Amino acid sequence: MRITTFTDYTLRVLMYLALKEKPNEPSESRESVALATIPEIAAAYGISSNHLMKVVHHLARTGTIESIRGKGGGIRLAAAPDQIRLGQVIRASESNGPIVECLGEEPGVCKIAPVCRLANILGTAFEALYASLDQYTLADLTRQSKPLQGLLFSTSTAPTTKRGKS
Amino acid sequence: MRITTFTDYTLRVLMYLALKEKPNEPSESRESVALATIPEIAAAYGISSNHLMKVVHHLARTGTIESIRGKGGGIRLAAAPDQIRLGQVIRASESNGPIVECLGEEPGVCKIAPVCRLANILGTAFEALYASLDQYTLADLTRQSKPLQGLLFSTSTAPTTKRGKS
Repeated sequence: MRITTFTDYTLRVLMYLALKEKPNEPSESRESVALATIPEIAAAYGISSNHLMKVVHHLARTGTIESIRGKGGGIRLAAAPDQIRLGQVIRASESNGPIVECLGEEPGVCKIAPVCRLANILGTAFEALYASLDQYTLADLTRQSKPLQGLLFSTSTAPTTKRGKS
Repeated sequence: MRITTFTDYTLRVLMYLALKEKPNEPSESRESVALATIPEIAAAYGISSNHLMKVVHHLARTGTIESIRGKGGGIRLAAAPDQIRLGQVIRASESNGPIVECLGEEPGVCKIAPVCRLANILGTAFEALYASLDQYTLADLTRQSKPLQGLLFSTSTAPTTKRGKS
């Protein structure tokens, strides 16, 4: 089993946004958090902006990110990184289909579907997987912020201190 | 996330073999357990024999089933259904690739792979999934044996009592 590319890119977007926030600031309104653009994130990872559009749309719809339109607009996390649990993120990004074929809507896909216990057993196991993931937040994923920022940011996109130094 | 068709068919083969065994027998050598053939299992599920060949080959290689060649040959479980843990079965049938792209062998697939914690976090979560699945055996999956047998067996393939009645 593997996570989908959609989930992979969802996590990459969220990690980028978490890394762009200024670290160790006193808690403040999300409105002062710097925005990032889709082309900026795509360029940082060396992937296509088109791939990220669906991901960003999904994250805005789930309320995980805020999207500010217009000139100077962009996206940012809707909550601090340590408030965003990975199980919830991945459950939402992976929720595009049944765990096993018999849970799908096509009629008669498996002959024993009416009396099979597999779907229930798998459902329980996936709950265990998401519960394990919920023990981690986006902050845990981006804990090694300096080397991650080094790999992702050019000097023009790195988070800056109040004095404008990167 | 979903299980692969390979895993789906692996479980279908194992369930069929478990259901073909005579229930509630005193423990005895596996040699007396009735054999099933690939065409028989394929016909029961209404799927192609070709799809099952790779699955059967995999299950024989992992020692989960025994394969008897020649006239009157076929396959059977290598252990009793209550000794076959679902976590071990699914872990083996799903082990054809990394959980996330950065664990693959292609160079440079994700820019932050050298310092990213995602692979470790996902690895831990998948261990939780397989541990949950290991709480169940093939016997748990085929506990509703009568309706399952009703859906799968024609009178010529149903398990028979010693008097030859089905």
